[in-house]
Amino acid sequence: MDRQLEEAGFAASEAGQNGFSEALRNALGADLVLTGDETARYCSDWHGDVQCRAEAVLRPRTTEEVSACVRAAATLGLGIVPQGGNTGLVLGGVPDTPVAVVVLSLERMTRIRQIDPDDFSAVVEAGVMLETFKDEVSKAGLFFPLALGAQGSCQIGGNVSTNAGGVNVLRYGMTRELVLGLEVVLPDGSVFSGLSQLRKDNRGIDLKQLFIGAEGTLGIITAVSVKLLPRPEQVATALLALESLDDAIRLYRRARHQCCDLMSAFEFMPPLALRLAQEGIPDLQLPMDADHSAYVLMEISGSGLVDIDDLMARFLEQVMEDGLVIDGVLAQSQAQAQNIWLIREGMNEGQAKRGKHLRTDVSVPLSKLAEFVAEAEAAVASEMPDAICVSYGHVGDGNVHLNVLPDFEAGSAAIDAQILKAKKIVNSVLDRYKGSISAEHGIGRLKKPDFDTRLPDTHRQLLTAIKRAVDPHWTMNPGCQIDRT
Amino acid sequence: MDRQLEEAGFAASEAGQNGFSEALRNALGADLVLTGDETARYCSDWHGDVQCRAEAVLRPRTTEEVSACVRAAATLGLGIVPQGGNTGLVLGGVPDTPVAVVVLSLERMTRIRQIDPDDFSAVVEAGVMLETFKDEVSKAGLFFPLALGAQGSCQIGGNVSTNAGGVNVLRYGMTRELVLGLEVVLPDGSVFSGLSQLRKDNRGIDLKQLFIGAEGTLGIITAVSVKLLPRPEQVATALLALESLDDAIRLYRRARHQCCDLMSAFEFMPPLALRLAQEGIPDLQLPMDADHSAYVLMEISGSGLVDIDDLMARFLEQVMEDGLVIDGVLAQSQAQAQNIWLIREGMNEGQAKRGKHLRTDVSVPLSKLAEFVAEAEAAVASEMPDAICVSYGHVGDGNVHLNVLPDFEAGSAAIDAQILKAKKIVNSVLDRYKGSISAEHGIGRLKKPDFDTRLPDTHRQLLTAIKRAVDPHWTMNPGCQIDRT
Repeated sequence: MDRQLEEAGFAASEAGQNGFSEALRNALGADLVLTGDETARYCSDWHGDVQCRAEAVLRPRTTEEVSACVRAAATLGLGIVPQGGNTGLVLGGVPDTPVAVVVLSLERMTRIRQIDPDDFSAVVEAGVMLETFKDEVSKAGLFFPLALGAQGSCQIGGNVSTNAGGVNVLRYGMTRELVLGLEVVLPDGSVFSGLSQLRKDNRGIDLKQLFIGAEGTLGIITAVSVKLLPRPEQVATALLALESLDDAIRLYRRARHQCCDLMSAFEFMPPLALRLAQEGIPDLQLPMDADHSAYVLMEISGSGLVDIDDLMARFLEQVMEDGLVIDGVLAQSQAQAQNIWLIREGMNEGQAKRGKHLRTDVSVPLSKLAEFVAEAEAAVASEMPDAICVSYGHVGDGNVHLNVLPDFEAGSAAIDAQILKAKKIVNSVLDRYKGSISAEHGIGRLKKPDFDTRLPDTHRQLLTAIKRAVDPHWTMNPGCQIDRT
Repeated sequence: MDRQLEEAGFAASEAGQNGFSEALRNALGADLVLTGDETARYCSDWHGDVQCRAEAVLRPRTTEEVSACVRAAATLGLGIVPQGGNTGLVLGGVPDTPVAVVVLSLERMTRIRQIDPDDFSAVVEAGVMLETFKDEVSKAGLFFPLALGAQGSCQIGGNVSTNAGGVNVLRYGMTRELVLGLEVVLPDGSVFSGLSQLRKDNRGIDLKQLFIGAEGTLGIITAVSVKLLPRPEQVATALLALESLDDAIRLYRRARHQCCDLMSAFEFMPPLALRLAQEGIPDLQLPMDADHSAYVLMEISGSGLVDIDDLMARFLEQVMEDGLVIDGVLAQSQAQAQNIWLIREGMNEGQAKRGKHLRTDVSVPLSKLAEFVAEAEAAVASEMPDAICVSYGHVGDGNVHLNVLPDFEAGSAAIDAQILKAKKIVNSVLDRYKGSISAEHGIGRLKKPDFDTRLPDTHRQLLTAIKRAVDPHWTMNPGCQIDRT
């Protein structure tokens, strides 16, 4: 039994699985507790890369039941891994830890408590699926702007807990900027009742900020109050061809000024992305040949009296006249717009089909992005001539997914080694640019080693002090973000 | 010597003023230390309502000197009250505390370290005046949207430390939403180097959030990196007459949908506000008679290809045709727009000229605002027939300054009693609406009692745990926000 386990008073190996599950069922009732084979789907990650185990899976239906679960687990000396839709990409909700833990799934907390169009706000429980919530909000004539590839599976609680990003961040910000208030079950089982529909509330230190992005290491978010916005009734979507990433960034700056910050998406893709999209979705019709050097998916949106189509048309006229944009397709229908977005989604599927590869989620200052990508791709090419880089993403935020496809013929162990090597190469260039190893995905367990080695002492001391202050027994999501010290 | 002082090891009465100031001069050099009469202007608040004392005023010029000041004060067992432009309205930066303290003024940290138009970001030291910074940013073709009445005196460090609001919050958010990174000197003198120009960085718990709005109780913000935006080259400003506050809120909702969230200000004013503005600025020319029931100052702004004047004109046409807006003046020049804004500014001067009065800064959910104001004004009128209510402000955010002018003939002590009584009446209505006693001004020392009595136990425990974790000796801004426990 290692030192960490001993210090926490954890006694997994002594009690054995049956002891815990029986004790949990006695404390909480059988309906809240899954054990044995039923836990399997909560113990694997989104990509199926990791298989692990939990003593049990707890499935509370109310905030009070979450409290009871937290208290029961604490009494037994078990760690608690909160889990939403389990779509995270950094193993933040997967119980891959030497400490004996339960998974606490929020999937049964699915009530939309209220939608208030007159207040431009809503209160929603953690387990509500993002897409379900967006649809309900839309029926009320409003808009919740968070938009992710995983929105048909991910849950609001997880979105807030991981401070999710997505394709609309450049206009609406990360999830943090959409949150008005939180309800959180704390490590001692008490409830932080911070739901609020006030848009402006400046009563000192803003405690809710601590839990946003904490990935469940400080408590379990059970409900959220959020901002809603006017529903954009007009959307203009274009796929544009350019000379280079550098030109794409020039276009982005130009668009911000010219389009009044009404731009809601700006996604960069290399030509390989279009080919990958076709591999991912074989019957996809590309609206443009894949023989240009660079592509941008651009979206402008708005409601009411601004003519969005006209704005896009006049902007494109300007930038094509100047030669910044070489070619472009402006969607003439919602179906055409969806088809353009399919390229963006299909390229992820295409990468997955090719096989296991390096996925990164890095950011650098916008002015350095093109230089960084060129340098990192050159470094990979020079040291790994058989690997292929595909760099794409939300470049308006300085965020790029610089992925590396290894030599897929090399065999499983060699592929893993190549992925590790490629990551080291990319991160070493990134460090010179003072970039972030996680622009939007978070830290979880997957990025913890890379996070940890880059953490300045003062940050580490503060983080540890806060973790200890809020979760003195290190019960919450052990092994995620920071190691116990 | 009280228990708090003893616990902290403070020894003000024993050491005496000269002992401290000499020790500080020896440790830091005479240039950094003001004592005696020179401290007076740092020991009074913006309105001159409070006069207090500090053992010395420390005026560091660099982050390293701030560290040295913090260490020197800690060694002597002195508390530290950080101070920016001292324009706060809640006594957050005024050393009104029984604990022996120094004021640490950031006024000499006035470097704009960098403005990066290509990154839409800047790095600026805490002591830079907001207006100076806005001007420099504007010269670079960009825009920093924070806009306050005090912008010619307040400083960026104070803005961030208090999470300042202002007239543009409805579009751009509070100061928090404009911050990319912070440099903070912690209570032990170490430096949290969190300046960042990354727009997207999601590496776990976001430590900088703790310091925003903490009013210097967790550390001293020495520099800030912020987002910049495209400079709005077109601004349309209108003064509109309506039937009621209720209609004003209806207009606000309509404007959000119709104007694509391009609205940058929406200020409600009762007719009394126009008369107060004339009292404040006697040569002010009102662009409209003061005989309507309600007024709104509305501003739409943008850059580039959207025709803002046309948007405003078409919106006003709609809402006047519907009878929602009874009368309106659309500024035809920058001078006319400034004249409209002068009403908003002049009304504060008019209130100040009349004499000491209750200033509030409350918020309720938008849908409850009109009802809340009516109920609170009726409660004041019923219990204090000689008092006059004037309710105005950023109503789009649910934020209203429901001020109460007492019977100014009543004499100083009676006026103070009336102000206290009016505050109790307003707050008791506010509590029924689950409102905030501080929508934007913060807590400081002035609102601490009202904050404290409304603080739920779980919030208090979290706040205290965090304060202890970051500032174990309660050195930072003693007496502000929370009391030592």
